[in-house]
Amino acid sequence: MKLGRIRRDTLEGSVPRLVVAQPDQERVIDLATAEYHRLLATGATTDAARRLTAALYPSSMRDALAAGPTFLAAVQRTVASLTDHGQGVLPMQGISWLAPLDPPLMRDCLAFEQHLRNTFLKILPEIPRQHYERPLYYKGNPLTLIGHNETIPWPSYTRLMDYELELGFVIGRTGKDLTPEQVPSYLLGVTILNDFSARDIQMQEMQGLLGPAKGKDFSTALGPWITTVDEVDVHNLTMVARVNGEEWSRGSSSTIMWPVEEIIAYISKDEGVQVGELIGSGTVGFGCGLEHGKLLKPGDVVELEIEGIGVLRNKVGTPAPAGWTPQPRTPTTPADS
Amino acid sequence: MKLGRIRRDTLEGSVPRLVVAQPDQERVIDLATAEYHRLLATGATTDAARRLTAALYPSSMRDALAAGPTFLAAVQRTVASLTDHGQGVLPMQGISWLAPLDPPLMRDCLAFEQHLRNTFLKILPEIPRQHYERPLYYKGNPLTLIGHNETIPWPSYTRLMDYELELGFVIGRTGKDLTPEQVPSYLLGVTILNDFSARDIQMQEMQGLLGPAKGKDFSTALGPWITTVDEVDVHNLTMVARVNGEEWSRGSSSTIMWPVEEIIAYISKDEGVQVGELIGSGTVGFGCGLEHGKLLKPGDVVELEIEGIGVLRNKVGTPAPAGWTPQPRTPTTPADS
Repeated sequence: MKLGRIRRDTLEGSVPRLVVAQPDQERVIDLATAEYHRLLATGATTDAARRLTAALYPSSMRDALAAGPTFLAAVQRTVASLTDHGQGVLPMQGISWLAPLDPPLMRDCLAFEQHLRNTFLKILPEIPRQHYERPLYYKGNPLTLIGHNETIPWPSYTRLMDYELELGFVIGRTGKDLTPEQVPSYLLGVTILNDFSARDIQMQEMQGLLGPAKGKDFSTALGPWITTVDEVDVHNLTMVARVNGEEWSRGSSSTIMWPVEEIIAYISKDEGVQVGELIGSGTVGFGCGLEHGKLLKPGDVVELEIEGIGVLRNKVGTPAPAGWTPQPRTPTTPADS
Repeated sequence: MKLGRIRRDTLEGSVPRLVVAQPDQERVIDLATAEYHRLLATGATTDAARRLTAALYPSSMRDALAAGPTFLAAVQRTVASLTDHGQGVLPMQGISWLAPLDPPLMRDCLAFEQHLRNTFLKILPEIPRQHYERPLYYKGNPLTLIGHNETIPWPSYTRLMDYELELGFVIGRTGKDLTPEQVPSYLLGVTILNDFSARDIQMQEMQGLLGPAKGKDFSTALGPWITTVDEVDVHNLTMVARVNGEEWSRGSSSTIMWPVEEIIAYISKDEGVQVGELIGSGTVGFGCGLEHGKLLKPGDVVELEIEGIGVLRNKVGTPAPAGWTPQPRTPTTPADS
């Protein structure tokens, strides 16, 4: 199953709607509309149908997933009912996509050794051994996710814009202190994550030792939808990036150093993972411009394709005007040392 | 005004309730209960009173704040109505506190130069100049916040547990590309933040250059409540930490290198801040055990006191049993270089 979120117009402005995507039939199913009509067909009143539909298919994917197996069973029932009434079916063309997930937390790993080598060895004499001891990650900004076909904003403070070709893992169930063997029942699905990066500020931030912030948080692209794990072998997926139609990156999820089961088990240690969380794999080897000595420019179109999921396409925006900027401080002479 | 969240028992188990704290009167006001009775007194039916109360005072502080001035005006009206009916008033003693906020995002700065000097110069020849160029921060885990009087879990993977004495700034309004002059109308209030830290793993993670993760994310204490900015001068607050009743730290918010107006303006650049966000100031100078060569041990009681807010007290738990742990990887010999 492929689960997504789209924007639809209503009397009260545009609202997010949960959908099932069926790319082979070039259509998506608006779950709320389809379920509403399914309920009417069973004899429900319009008020009851509205109430039940709103409870089952909220605008938030995270909230929907929080219902657990009830949600996925409902989706199957709603989709199966389409043969009777056909309501809620939309042509794939012209859909206004949102990020398929509104996660409560977004962590992003650096789990491909080849990417580590290609990037860290440009600035360091060797790769910090900590990357070989445990899967390291930074935490992103889940409030600035954009969807398929949306334009990635070019922040005012960067001249070096890059893409990153990653898998996004979606947590389907809240858990804690998991073993790798337990993880498969907590992993709902996978999606495509483009961890757009402002390389100049990112490098400066990382030297401050608190990890990337402005270098990553301006926006991250996700989608076009989440493919549930029953449809793909997450351990062996071809991953490709194209810029303006030209292939820049090609790799495979099979080259990952820390398998997803170990990543999620490790993250769940002592703090847990929560339903609806998003966890990035980190960039596949050769999966960004930096690894090829190339950069993005305004107007470029970046397409990330991952086998079994689809193509996530985003256009690069034009630089935002510089606004207020902090003035550097002068270190004080320590009076106490 | 002092806004908090507490846990109360209902027929369907315990639920979070929004409250106004009145420490000088040693009482808190359960806003939902008080508003329900206010509405009944005005002639509303029980169903209507329930519906309106639930819409105004959800269990989430973030959701409540998202209503904007409507929420704060409602709180004032609800509290003013108490003289008529007195429902919803609870004695301060015996309250089960939750973190006052369930933020959509939590960023934590390092804005006190003295703390930078006291900690970074232990491990580095000099402070990375990036800290003087802009306010740097890492992103925490907003899903593991605990409240006043709750026990801080001791994660399985650390032997070096520490506290950190910080101010927590609460965003009251969504905005983007703010100037420092605009920030005051976006800052709702301040609270006390204890950024508990597992120093051993934190140091290792920071050497991997992605910032702290497991070293911080197991849990952060917040509270006991949010004091709205009209009640305090955030630029001049005495900050004290006590461990088992003994004073370990004393400082003032006046020593901050990056004022809150600049921190929030900087964070808002190109990505924005969202209502209900939590932004930590970073540790005040001498505000953690590491700066005094001291560590916490299981059973210790840590009290953070900030002028105009109150005292945030947490007991330190006992170490969790070691669960599954990742096995280190062997670096491969690069075939391609």
